[in-house]
Amino acid sequence: MNYRIVLYILGYVLKFESIFLLLPALVDLLFYSEDAAVPYFFCAALCLICGLLLGVRKPRNKSLYAREGFATVALSWLVMSIFGALPFVLTGDIPSYVDALFETISGFTTTGASILTEVEPLTHASLFWRSFTHWIGGMGVFVFIMAILPMMGGSNMNLMRAESPGPSVTKLVPHVKDTAKILYGIYLAMTVLEVILLIAFGMPAFDAFTSTFGTVGTGGFGIKNDSFASYTPALQNIVTIFMILSGINYSAYFLLLSKKFREAFKIEEIRWYLLIILGSAGIIAFNIRHLYPTLEETLRHSFFQVGSIITTTGFATANFDLWPELSKCILVLLMFLGACAGSTGGGMKVSRVVLLCKTIKKELSLSIHPREVRKVRMDGHVIGHEILRSTNVFLVIYFLLLLFSTLLVSVDNFNFTTNFTAVAATLNNIGPGLDAVGPSCNFSIFSTFSKFVLMFDMLAGRLELFPILVMLMPSTWRRR
Amino acid sequence: MNYRIVLYILGYVLKFESIFLLLPALVDLLFYSEDAAVPYFFCAALCLICGLLLGVRKPRNKSLYAREGFATVALSWLVMSIFGALPFVLTGDIPSYVDALFETISGFTTTGASILTEVEPLTHASLFWRSFTHWIGGMGVFVFIMAILPMMGGSNMNLMRAESPGPSVTKLVPHVKDTAKILYGIYLAMTVLEVILLIAFGMPAFDAFTSTFGTVGTGGFGIKNDSFASYTPALQNIVTIFMILSGINYSAYFLLLSKKFREAFKIEEIRWYLLIILGSAGIIAFNIRHLYPTLEETLRHSFFQVGSIITTTGFATANFDLWPELSKCILVLLMFLGACAGSTGGGMKVSRVVLLCKTIKKELSLSIHPREVRKVRMDGHVIGHEILRSTNVFLVIYFLLLLFSTLLVSVDNFNFTTNFTAVAATLNNIGPGLDAVGPSCNFSIFSTFSKFVLMFDMLAGRLELFPILVMLMPSTWRRR
Repeated sequence: MNYRIVLYILGYVLKFESIFLLLPALVDLLFYSEDAAVPYFFCAALCLICGLLLGVRKPRNKSLYAREGFATVALSWLVMSIFGALPFVLTGDIPSYVDALFETISGFTTTGASILTEVEPLTHASLFWRSFTHWIGGMGVFVFIMAILPMMGGSNMNLMRAESPGPSVTKLVPHVKDTAKILYGIYLAMTVLEVILLIAFGMPAFDAFTSTFGTVGTGGFGIKNDSFASYTPALQNIVTIFMILSGINYSAYFLLLSKKFREAFKIEEIRWYLLIILGSAGIIAFNIRHLYPTLEETLRHSFFQVGSIITTTGFATANFDLWPELSKCILVLLMFLGACAGSTGGGMKVSRVVLLCKTIKKELSLSIHPREVRKVRMDGHVIGHEILRSTNVFLVIYFLLLLFSTLLVSVDNFNFTTNFTAVAATLNNIGPGLDAVGPSCNFSIFSTFSKFVLMFDMLAGRLELFPILVMLMPSTWRRR
Repeated sequence: MNYRIVLYILGYVLKFESIFLLLPALVDLLFYSEDAAVPYFFCAALCLICGLLLGVRKPRNKSLYAREGFATVALSWLVMSIFGALPFVLTGDIPSYVDALFETISGFTTTGASILTEVEPLTHASLFWRSFTHWIGGMGVFVFIMAILPMMGGSNMNLMRAESPGPSVTKLVPHVKDTAKILYGIYLAMTVLEVILLIAFGMPAFDAFTSTFGTVGTGGFGIKNDSFASYTPALQNIVTIFMILSGINYSAYFLLLSKKFREAFKIEEIRWYLLIILGSAGIIAFNIRHLYPTLEETLRHSFFQVGSIITTTGFATANFDLWPELSKCILVLLMFLGACAGSTGGGMKVSRVVLLCKTIKKELSLSIHPREVRKVRMDGHVIGHEILRSTNVFLVIYFLLLLFSTLLVSVDNFNFTTNFTAVAATLNNIGPGLDAVGPSCNFSIFSTFSKFVLMFDMLAGRLELFPILVMLMPSTWRRR
């Protein structure tokens, strides 16, 4: 392990976090004056000092292999959360540091699971920071750094691979740096567009910004206790549309911008994604039709909840814990499915599930025609053996981690539905689960031990298992 | 598809079933005279006639490839259940044919999930038949047929592979026929031994036989409403021991009989299996210590339940649905784990889980040391790529089937715990789940639709997914 380079890059990350922390401080100073600026300035200074200290000694050996890539990304997300939790404690908004850490990890990983019973008493600076962590975590902090900084050599791909979601990472253009710029460009454009639309339809500016961070980052922290229930139908529908758009593979937007319309509409994953949304929302609307007075309201709630869960955002306009079991079960399955690869959403990703289904079909066919040669194809391309294998292994780890975490959390003696969906909601970076962690409840009920298990799951889910699990292997930390 | 040979073998199976059906008829005639003999004789005659009709035309082409092997086994299990359900209806013990079919599939697949609220009012013939289906299904009907009949050529292996549990099928001796004989020999010896011990410790003969069928077949149908709660502690402990013994890979017994003691004790899977039983029972005993007056009782209940669930038997001495969540969660995880490959137990099998964990370790290590060459080993042998791949795919299918079945069952609007554990308990051939399908409840609550979903899961679980799923593919049924 090349420790020097890992620490050096960690320094970078902290310097960037110090800049990010200035934003909530400015929000407080300029608009609200709730005495929250000083804690945020202090934390920004602390991040800057630590960042500078780590950056003092430039590494001689600039090589960054897979091992260092995983370790850097995993440690960065951890360190960002550890520092990012401090202002919540210093402002007094979340007195317990463990709770603040849970909230921050939930923010950066775009989970949106909260330990707060009420969010409205928080200072505006903290509300802003909470939502802004979604925005940073959504596209990924390294994609951001790469987009604006000339980094070391050609080894950036190892960082990108460790941070980006999906079974395989494709560069849109030959250079990683340019790919990162394009991704953040699209991300920023979506953000600006949503903010403008929300304000145009009557949402206050502060609400518009925080809601947008939560939407495009597919996070789910709201600034109201009832999440999105009290906003107008128009605003709810705008958010539904942007949630669904944020769950689409960003390479589709790139193809659209490059005027390759035919290719963009041919992406198999996106077709399945949209089909599943339509199908699920349709079935749920039929299933809950007796609960709402009009068809418009029924459809609005079903599409909002489906969009929110499949993209792993976690906003809610209705307490879906009170819906019939079929609807709840569809939502639980969507939790696992997740959004498209290469989007800001979490979960297993539609393309992984499509690949798995194709693999199953191939294997079943092979079992009865053993000499047949069959290839798994996606978007017309043959999918390599390596990707299929790692997709299979991904699911296996995922399934075992899910069961094992449920076991650990069950020590708190809540019921099975609560434990299982709490783990599912954190591992898939959704936010709310069912029963005691349903949309109208929160995660404060759990013991400190369980909170740490769920924090681990959130990080493992956001970084897609490997970087976090690799950290637990002693051989990762051995010097060459 | 060589239809002629498939139908010819189906004929064999029906002829054997007609012999099996004579046993409950004799039980009624000789000991109880509850007017149940005629229905059983009638069904035996029906099976015999159908069997003879199917056997009239000998197939010219005797080749039996993988495709025919899967189809024969899957169809046989289905046909056996369809005929085996008739006497329950004709005796009036289970008036609804769907319920009778559910009960029979549950019997043959050694699940032990019942739709009966009370079992004690049943005729003794039906109680006997119910338990005897476990005994037939436990070791497998084809293993039985092969053991006593000279079958067609060298293609028997394709039948054995489709019916036997575990990631890979090993022949104990060069000939399939001899392997089958040895397996049934051990099975029979275990049965006789348990019957003798149970009778010696004071159990009535009828109870001893039916309990033994449920134990060595790892089935779980009891003949008392409270399962095993009312038997003496000594009898409970005997059953615990035989359940655990029945979950062990039968090749270990063969090694012991061949006096290869060292090899037998070196089998990795069995070591894990026993370790997991000890660990789980220990943790559960600690967790439930306040519920029972003495340490002996605590240990007895925890070992009985752990042995019952890990071997997927499903007997109960206590209503574990009332135990703390940690204990319940351990039991749910054990449901998925299952017993050893090559035993009569269901579930995923310990060796599969061990293989999956080793694969994960290998993949994690590969991700940080990409050029490393690593092999997965088990019992000192390198495990081939094919077995690892099919093990991975097995889990993927398993996981998707689990989620999808849960979705379908949720239409009945029971809560998530009920739906999820009902599917887990049938797919893994356990029997009882939690909540509304807990040990003191039954499966009669479900709609006909859900019952069919669960029947499908029981068959898929017993035949380890492939044979049943292959039946759903059109290409299986195409003529050459």
